[in-house]
Amino acid sequence: MTSSSLRVLGIDPGLTRCGIGVVDVTRDRRASLVHVGVVRSHPDLPIERRLAIIAAGIRDVLAAHAPDIVAVERVFAQHNTRTVMGTAQASGIALLLAAEHGLPAATHTPSEVKAAITGYGNADKRQVQTMVARVLRLDELPKPADAADALALAVCHAWRGAPAADARADTATLTPAQRAWALAEKASRR
Amino acid sequence: MTSSSLRVLGIDPGLTRCGIGVVDVTRDRRASLVHVGVVRSHPDLPIERRLAIIAAGIRDVLAAHAPDIVAVERVFAQHNTRTVMGTAQASGIALLLAAEHGLPAATHTPSEVKAAITGYGNADKRQVQTMVARVLRLDELPKPADAADALALAVCHAWRGAPAADARADTATLTPAQRAWALAEKASRR
Repeated sequence: MTSSSLRVLGIDPGLTRCGIGVVDVTRDRRASLVHVGVVRSHPDLPIERRLAIIAAGIRDVLAAHAPDIVAVERVFAQHNTRTVMGTAQASGIALLLAAEHGLPAATHTPSEVKAAITGYGNADKRQVQTMVARVLRLDELPKPADAADALALAVCHAWRGAPAADARADTATLTPAQRAWALAEKASRR
Repeated sequence: MTSSSLRVLGIDPGLTRCGIGVVDVTRDRRASLVHVGVVRSHPDLPIERRLAIIAAGIRDVLAAHAPDIVAVERVFAQHNTRTVMGTAQASGIALLLAAEHGLPAATHTPSEVKAAITGYGNADKRQVQTMVARVLRLDELPKPADAADALALAVCHAWRGAPAADARADTATLTPAQRAWALAEKASRR
């Protein structure tokens, strides 16, 4: 990480698979992969053990990569009610660990993330994976989808978090793809 | 706590008010108050700070009262969707802290708790408060309702957790109220 870049830990919360991605994003919006992974806990374990495994996995990444901020996907009650409580519990763990490491935290909705990364709030998983690979200049698609989502969330946070004035001033110096993202990002703020 | 009693920490999870109750319950189902309180976090604080405040409050009680087990109210997606995500996140914190203290954890539904304490799964808050005060031989009703719910949860867990054979064998030696609770508890298991 250079002094002018932001290191973001993105977390796509879940009990069975919790996606974790760390990216460095410079002021000119160039994003680089630092770490990507998935913390898994087995559905047969008691819920408190599963949450402890997720917490340990997040703590390892916090210690290894020292992010500046933590971005967590926002969970909605109306989605997928069978697993939503576990997802919400895992998101609570992620947010708690941010606070306990003295880091700011932010949440973004899935459609905010998709809009920021692909220009389209209803993008499918494949589109998100493809754009994440392109943005981070990866040779292959990040897998599984939870890992790509965590990376997308981290990049989304850095891009959305930049001051609006910067986003406007920098548009002329962006690549066409970056300009498209900047516009999508602006649109998603409305 | 005597060696033959179980010390249960009951947690009624919430962000604005998280009810916390600690009871000792003997093998003959006599319950005694150890601690009751509410951890509060202000709605204007960022979510990660609120969760950290709840976690600190629960850790204080774990350190001060060394429970044998932690019982947490089970949260459902279909209830009160405006606050349910925060409630689920707080419950995740409670379960994580149990695991990190090496304690077993259990969850009970509100209707299981009400049935165990009042004999009636749809009991209102006042009925729960009244029966909790009676069971714990308190001079006044535990307030606020979140505190009473946490105590009810702790007592419910100890009573439901007792081996079924005990519950049957002891029925003859119970007071009429205890017998009613034992029957309600048995009914709630069906």
